[in-house]
Order: sequence, then C-alpha cells, then structure tokens
Amino acid sequence: MSEKTKKPQKLKARLPRGFVDREAHDIRAVNEMTAKIREVYERYGFDPVETPLFEYTDALGKFLPDSDRPNEGVFSLQDDDDQWMSLRYDLTAPLARHVAENFNEIQLPYRTYRAGYVFRNEKPGPGRFRQFMQFDADSVGAPGVQADAEMCMMMADTLEALGIKRGDYVIRVNNRKVLDGVMEAIGLGGDENAARRLNVLRAIDKLDKFGPEGVKLLLGEGRKDESGDFTKGAGLNADQIYCLEPILTFENEGDNISVAKHGQNPGSVEFSIVSKDNIADVKFEPESTQEKAKQFGRINALTLGYIHSMMSHIKEKFPESSAFGVGGIGHDGYVELSTIAALVETAGYNEENMRIKVDPSCVRGLEYYTGPVYEAELTFDVTNEKGEKVVFGSVGGGGRYDGLVSRFMGQPVPATGFSIGVSRLMTALKNLGKLGADEVIAPVLVTVMDGDVDSMGRYQRFTQALRAEGIRAEMYQGNWKKFGNQLKYADRRGSPIAIIQGGDEREQGVVQIKDLIEGKRLSGEITDNAEWREARVAQIVVPEAELVAKVKEILAAQAEDRARAKS
Amino acid sequence: MSEKTKKPQKLKARLPRGFVDREAHDIRAVNEMTAKIREVYERYGFDPVETPLFEYTDALGKFLPDSDRPNEGVFSLQDDDDQWMSLRYDLTAPLARHVAENFNEIQLPYRTYRAGYVFRNEKPGPGRFRQFMQFDADSVGAPGVQADAEMCMMMADTLEALGIKRGDYVIRVNNRKVLDGVMEAIGLGGDENAARRLNVLRAIDKLDKFGPEGVKLLLGEGRKDESGDFTKGAGLNADQIYCLEPILTFENEGDNISVAKHGQNPGSVEFSIVSKDNIADVKFEPESTQEKAKQFGRINALTLGYIHSMMSHIKEKFPESSAFGVGGIGHDGYVELSTIAALVETAGYNEENMRIKVDPSCVRGLEYYTGPVYEAELTFDVTNEKGEKVVFGSVGGGGRYDGLVSRFMGQPVPATGFSIGVSRLMTALKNLGKLGADEVIAPVLVTVMDGDVDSMGRYQRFTQALRAEGIRAEMYQGNWKKFGNQLKYADRRGSPIAIIQGGDEREQGVVQIKDLIEGKRLSGEITDNAEWREARVAQIVVPEAELVAKVKEILAAQAEDRARAKS
Repeated sequence: MSEKTKKPQKLKARLPRGFVDREAHDIRAVNEMTAKIREVYERYGFDPVETPLFEYTDALGKFLPDSDRPNEGVFSLQDDDDQWMSLRYDLTAPLARHVAENFNEIQLPYRTYRAGYVFRNEKPGPGRFRQFMQFDADSVGAPGVQADAEMCMMMADTLEALGIKRGDYVIRVNNRKVLDGVMEAIGLGGDENAARRLNVLRAIDKLDKFGPEGVKLLLGEGRKDESGDFTKGAGLNADQIYCLEPILTFENEGDNISVAKHGQNPGSVEFSIVSKDNIADVKFEPESTQEKAKQFGRINALTLGYIHSMMSHIKEKFPESSAFGVGGIGHDGYVELSTIAALVETAGYNEENMRIKVDPSCVRGLEYYTGPVYEAELTFDVTNEKGEKVVFGSVGGGGRYDGLVSRFMGQPVPATGFSIGVSRLMTALKNLGKLGADEVIAPVLVTVMDGDVDSMGRYQRFTQALRAEGIRAEMYQGNWKKFGNQLKYADRRGSPIAIIQGGDEREQGVVQIKDLIEGKRLSGEITDNAEWREARVAQIVVPEAELVAKVKEILAAQAEDRARAKS
Repeated sequence: MSEKTKKPQKLKARLPRGFVDREAHDIRAVNEMTAKIREVYERYGFDPVETPLFEYTDALGKFLPDSDRPNEGVFSLQDDDDQWMSLRYDLTAPLARHVAENFNEIQLPYRTYRAGYVFRNEKPGPGRFRQFMQFDADSVGAPGVQADAEMCMMMADTLEALGIKRGDYVIRVNNRKVLDGVMEAIGLGGDENAARRLNVLRAIDKLDKFGPEGVKLLLGEGRKDESGDFTKGAGLNADQIYCLEPILTFENEGDNISVAKHGQNPGSVEFSIVSKDNIADVKFEPESTQEKAKQFGRINALTLGYIHSMMSHIKEKFPESSAFGVGGIGHDGYVELSTIAALVETAGYNEENMRIKVDPSCVRGLEYYTGPVYEAELTFDVTNEKGEKVVFGSVGGGGRYDGLVSRFMGQPVPATGFSIGVSRLMTALKNLGKLGADEVIAPVLVTVMDGDVDSMGRYQRFTQALRAEGIRAEMYQGNWKKFGNQLKYADRRGSPIAIIQGGDEREQGVVQIKDLIEGKRLSGEITDNAEWREARVAQIVVPEAELVAKVKEILAAQAEDRARAKS
C-alpha cells in the first residue's frame, strides 16, 4: 500500500463489541429493583460486602464453560510485576478469596450479599453482553442443607417482593451429587474422568436450548447445528446415555406436575423411565410415597419417587457400583434433596402453589458446585424476537460450593449461595409492568430571554427557588439566542412547564408560566417544531413572588390528570 | 535451583496491590451518601446515564498525569480482534464518547449524572487505590459560563444536602485561560510548547503537596524529595517563574480572605505580588473595585482585583504579548471568571458565607480542561496519620472540557462538569458524624437445639414469622451441635435477641427469648465465651404464638435505650 492511501483516520466514537451504555429509564429501574432485593436480603439477616473488580487470575480459578475463548472466557492482563490479574467473571469466586484472606477476622457462618458488574470474554451476540450485573447472596460456613433450603426460600420471597405473583415463578432445586452418582455408576468416576464429567454436565445444562434429543447427541458422538457447525460430544455409549435419560425426559414433560401425569393417585404410582430403546416400568413403594406425599407435598414427593426409581433402575443395571447404596454419593444427594423438600414444606412454601420444586434436570453450568443447586424460573409466556411464545425462563440460580473457599485453606469451608441476573430480571419486571410505576417527571424549564449578567442571575434565582421546594428545575444552558431551540428542547425533554421572562415582564416584576402538557393536549398531536410554536398553549402571567406556588399548583393538576388517565 | 526445592505452592488468598474489599458499614454509608447526592442532581434537572467500564483505548485518549506508568496510568488489554481496550480512568472521557456516538439522538444541552468505578494503573500506596468510585454530573452542549456557575452552585448544594455546614466548605473556582494567558505571555504558547505547558500545569497542581517553594523548584530545574529522588522540572527561567508566582503565593495565604489582608478597605487596596527577588506593589483602581465589591461580594472582588493586577504586571513586563489584551486568551479568562463570580453572587450564594470563591491557584491536574475549573474543598481540620492537624481539603472538582467531545466530531461541542471522589467525601462525612445515624440492627438469632427435619422446620417457621413482620432474623446455619458456638456467634454478630427452643419447650409449645443487650448490660463487660455463657442474661419464656409480639416489644425497648444513651 502506498503512503498516500494511508490517510490519518478520524477518531471514531464507538464502544467495544459486547458492551452497552445504559439509559436513564434502565438505571432507575435497576435502582428500584435492587433496593427491593436488598431489603429482602437484609431482612434475612444478610449484610453487604464487596470485592474489587480485579483478582489475581489464579485466585479466581477457571470454572467458566467457555474453554474455547481467550483466557477461558476471562479478561486478563499482566500487572507491572508480571503477575496475571483478571476481571471477575462472577461474584462467588472473589467472595471465596475474601473469606479465605480474612478468615481469622470473619465470624462464621458469614451471611453476605453484593451487587456488581462481572465480565465474560465471550463472543458477543444479540442479548449477550461482556459486562453485566449480578446480585448475589451467600452463606459461608454453613454445612447443612437447611442453608440451601433457606436460599431457595429467599429467592422465592425476593421474586414476590418484586411483584411477581405466586404461580408465575418456580424455584427448581436439585443436587449435583445425584448426577455425580449416575456418572460414577456408569463408569465416569475418578480424577481421570473429570473432563468427561464436565462435558456431561455442560451438555445437560443445554437442555433448555437443544431439548433432550439434542443433549443426547452431545452426550454421544456430537451434534451438528443448523449452520452445519459440529460440536464434539462427550463420547458416552448407548447404555451410559440411557441411564442419564430420565434426567433429560423429566424436564421435557414441560409442566409443573410432570411426574404426577404418570399416575394420578399418589398411593399407587407407576413411574416410566423412557429411553429410545427401552421402556422400563418401575414401581415405587406405595406406603412410603403416601407418607412422603403428606410430608413433602404431593408433587415433590412424586419427583423424589421418580428420582428414587431412576436410582433403583441404575442399581439394577450396574450392580457393582456403590454410588446409590447407603453412603454412596448419589444416595447422599437423594437424602439431602429429600431434606430440602421437607424443610420448605414445613416452612409452608408449597401450601397453595408449587413455589419450590424438586427437578432432576436442574444442573447449572458452573463447575464449582458440589451439592444442592437451585434456579429461579419465571413461568409466564413472553414473545421472543422471532415472535414465538416462550416461557420467560431462568432469572438466577446458584448452589453449594464446598470446595471454593477450601482451595485456599487447610480446612473445609462449606458454603452456598445464588446469583440474580439483574438485567434479565429487570426485563421480566418491565414485561409485567412492575417497574417505574412512579415515573420521574422531567424538570421545569426556566428559559433565557436575555443574556446579560443581571437577567441570567434572575433566571438562576427562579430556578433555585423552585429547586428549594423540591421541584426539578433547570435554566436553559444551550445557546439562549435561539429561543425556538429552547421550546424545542422543552418539548423533546418532556418538560411539564416553561418559565419565561422578557424585558417587559421583568419591568413589571412578573413571569409567564406555560403549562406544556396542557398546551400539548390543547394543540393535539404536534408533529413539527413550527407547529409546536404556533400551537395555542396554556399560559398565565403571575407576579414573581407567586411563581413557585403557581408551578406547584400546575404540577399537582398534571399529576391528577395522569392518575385519571391511568384509572 | 534443583527440582526438589520447587514445591507446588499452595494457592494464596490475596488481592492485587492497590485494590481493597469493602465492608458493610462502608457500603451502607456510600449508599446513603450517593442517594442524597442523586436527589440534588435530579432536582437540578440531571438524568442518569452510564457507560461500561471498557472503552477503546484511542477513544479514551491519554489525559492522565501519570505519563511514567504503564500505558500512561491506564489498564489496557488487546481484544481478540487485536484492538486495544482500556478500563476507564474517569467518567468524563467515556461520556464524551457516548455523546459523540449518539449525537443524532441526543437533545442538547444534555444534562446527566453517573456514579461508577474508575481505574488507575498507579503505583499503589497508603490511601492510593487503583479502583475507586466517582460521582459525576455534566452539561454537554452548554457553551456559556452560566453552566459552570451552575456546577459550582450544585456542588455547594450537594455538600449542604450531605450535612456539611456552610462555612465548613468552599467551592474554589478559576479559569484555565488565565493560566494559559500567563504562559502565552511568558513565551510558552504554541503547539511546540504543549508538553512544557503540561509540566507547568502539573507543577502548580502540586501546590497543596509541596507548597510554593517546592512548586517553584518544579517550575525551574527540578526538585529533590526527602528520599533523595530527583524530579526534573519544567525548566522555566527566573523571569518566567516570577510571573507565575502570584498564583502560588495566593494559595499560600491559606485562609478565606487571603487577599483582603493586604488592605482592609476595599476602596483603596494595595495588592502585593511577592517573589523571592522582587516586591512590586500594584495599585488597583478604587472606583472599579468599589463597584465590583458591591456586585460580586467583597472577597471575590478583591481576588479578581488581585488577578487583574497580576495581569497588568505581566503586561508591563511582556508588552509584546497580546494574551491579556482585549480578545486575548488571558483577558477572556478574566471576563469569564468575573461573570461566574457575578452569577453566583446574584443567585445569593455568597451572602452569609463565602461559599463559592475565586481562587487563581485552583488549576486541576487533568489535561483536557479548557476554561473554568472548580474544586470543592472542606475547610475544617482533621488529624492525619502523622497526628498533624490538616485542612481536610478537596473532595471533588471539575471544569470545562470543550475539546473532548469534538475530538470525535466535525463541530465544537462545549461541555462542563465535575466529579466527586466518593470515598474521600465519605471519610469526611464519617469524621463529621453525618453518616449511619440510623444504624442497622443485627438480626435476631433463632438458635438450633435439635437437627431433625421437624425441629428445623419449626425454627425456620419462627424465623419466617419474624421476617414477615419486617424484623431482621436468621436461623443459625453453622454446625448446630455446638450450642456454645451459637451464642458466641450471636455475641460477635451483635444480635439483639436470641430465640431458643429445646425438646421440653417444644412439648409445651413455648419459646425462650433472650434479650442479649439487656443481658450484656446486666453482666457488665464480658471478656470470654465461658463468662458469656455464665452471665445472667435477661430472658423470658412465652407461648409460640406470642413470639413475634414479644420480640417486637424487646426491640422497641432496646431502641429507646439507645435513644436515651445518645441524648
């Protein structure tokens, strides 16, 4: 290329891909929402704590699913002492570091919450951002599943505090140990199979996206997507996939009483475990089901029965494995899950509606979970960008991560917690009309007719007098010489009132007050600036001393109008 | 080194240097403070807008003073398409990019505010962090100095809304153009001297730190600090430094009426411009002073007179320069500064106290300012880490940056705005006892005596019943088997009340309620856990149904005690 064609490029104003600016309505909505969430967490006895955005890369660990992205999906750079630092990809790994670093000062159980931005070095796409906000709550030093049960209840209470009706959401709860049990039974136990287990986990986590048939391909040889791209699978054989199938098909039932469909009477239920090649009917003991149905609520009891029958089935097929025997990891998972179901039941969470639901297909994509996992799902339909009706879906989740703090320590530090995806939840609340109910009114505009210091000072005094009474107000700060621009500004800004004082009015000690909303109403739909200026707008002239009182009066009348229009 | 000594190091929990975790009291204080600031900005007609933490490096520009640090003080990394991205170092440069990128949709003047973290790749030190929060407000598309005057007033109103008394703060205002005029006059004009001008600016900005003598060294050959490190100076000669001296010595007077000291009667003031080698007395015209003293308030009039006499003096010394002639940059700066002084005067800001004060020594360290600059200073004394009494000092500032948006555009886009250093201001408010007045009460602890599902469910129900009434409450989530740990936890956590139910109580349908505050008072100073358990604590037994009412009653009594203790 010749030197001549290399013209210096003009500086271009643009954001890096996958990052966005946030506008006023969005910021106000998030503030309103996070204040309500905080209120619930505080009531539950959680206190705020925050960590910075940077951590040493090794302290964060690599637990993200994006193993094919730069730095495994994390933004990293080298400090001037050559140590690698990364921007946090979630709020859990930094909390683990915080607890380990301050272990002697911290009183366990340590119950904290935090909201903040996290960063993923992902391929950006529609609705996929590389910076987003999470709102987390965690109990560290809480070994029992009662802590996990509490998290599920707190998620439910949070959604209701935000105005989401009972029945419009469900907290799905499962236990990774059950899945680990299945994997152990089918020969994927041991350190040497850690990578394959991770692949299985991530395949199942894509159930929402690809459905059971798609996931089965990912568990086996692999899956080709619509564009022809091939994703290599976990390489399980048919027998192995068969054992994982009840997990996939449970979700596929698609409604809240999926299991109950197999038999309406909890006293004598037959559970079907279906795979492509085989149908096996497993009978669950009637007495025990009845008892549990009383204790846990019918649906969770049936689901636990479903899981139990899956376990029995696998035990039959792989009799040499101890995963589902007493003391086995799968058995432990089942017992923990039963305990959580019982605790939420006694606390009254499943009396009228199924608020907290056992669901064997809930696995969560992050690698660090070690026990119970849970997810908040909104169950109402929304229309997606393709015009299809879809269930709104997950707005957050979490689980037990007993290994995350102990990575730094010589001792085990059990912990559990969850994360809310702030922007997704906000979208949901907007869909439901649950945010921005008390809309912010644009400021009253004090226009500038004369630019001398005296007049300016006077306009400034009017503005300050309004502000002193708590009224949003501003003096026009653009080029005051074009008065038309000032009214155009007021219109675009949605100013409710404009204040005008020219030389004549100043001499008489009066001001003009234009009711811009009333003016707009009188003039009908205003389409351009010329029309706007000609429109007959409601206006009055008052002595300067009455300015504030009159503005208050007009604002009150406008508020009444708005209230009337709504009802 | 042999292979044997290279043992795998245990993962260490530590933060990168210059970053800190934030604790509950700090987070709550910042939330309380930012809510109050937001309220003032909203009242002034500003709306929130936010940008992400990353920008393309070229879009940010390099305006930081840290030219000797990696990437000139900025954290940068390369995206996977090889473009350089940086973490923002302030909130102004990203706002400029935002306005330029959305110029067609944005209605000017564009009045916005934002709070967020910014990052400096600085050498960390005590009180010097590499991540900190700023809270900014800006008017973009506001060409007149009335917009700068408004910013000064808004800073003053913000400080008062936070509880800082009139007289305990001052907003210092100056104009970069005056300094630019001096530099032009002494031969530092033109593109070829840009780097030297920047060195002069940054030397003067260190006036607080090094005093006038230290700054003079930095303006000349250079300065050696206590440790023997030498900082190269701007290389000005004695004549040039002499002209800058009035700026340095003004600040050195050190009180609010520094100029007035030279002559108590505004009708006939003699201003002294003092340098090491020379004393020149310049008479300021009495008529004009009197007139301005009425219009601007006495102190600002005198300061403007001081600046005017400095200008005359430089004009005499460098008669060939037009910098301080009509239309010269220095003269323009003086006129703008006078206008700002007049506007804040007419708006009533300097009636009782000197709230907004013209100060020629206020320059601000950032390179991008083009006109008025302003700074909020807290004037009360605090004790520093060395035990010395010092003025608290700056908590924020800003200025006009007419060139920052137009870097991206083919047209000028004038703008002005300021930034509050959130953590510094919070420290000040804590010193004044203006934050955390209504202290958050720790949660009521529901202890766990028995770990079976039934009992757990029951404890959970008690906890939920308290929460339902808005009382902060938690069930103990640690290992319940060590009951002593539960009481220790309650003590450390500051829990006001503990709820206990063992088997006997459960059978009778009653609960024990321990008033831990009263108990503490009765037992005096408790030094260890054993003592605590033996201490006679206030406790009662009530039927389960009366639990919530009784807890409310005790909490109310404790609140009364606290109120009494305060008054």
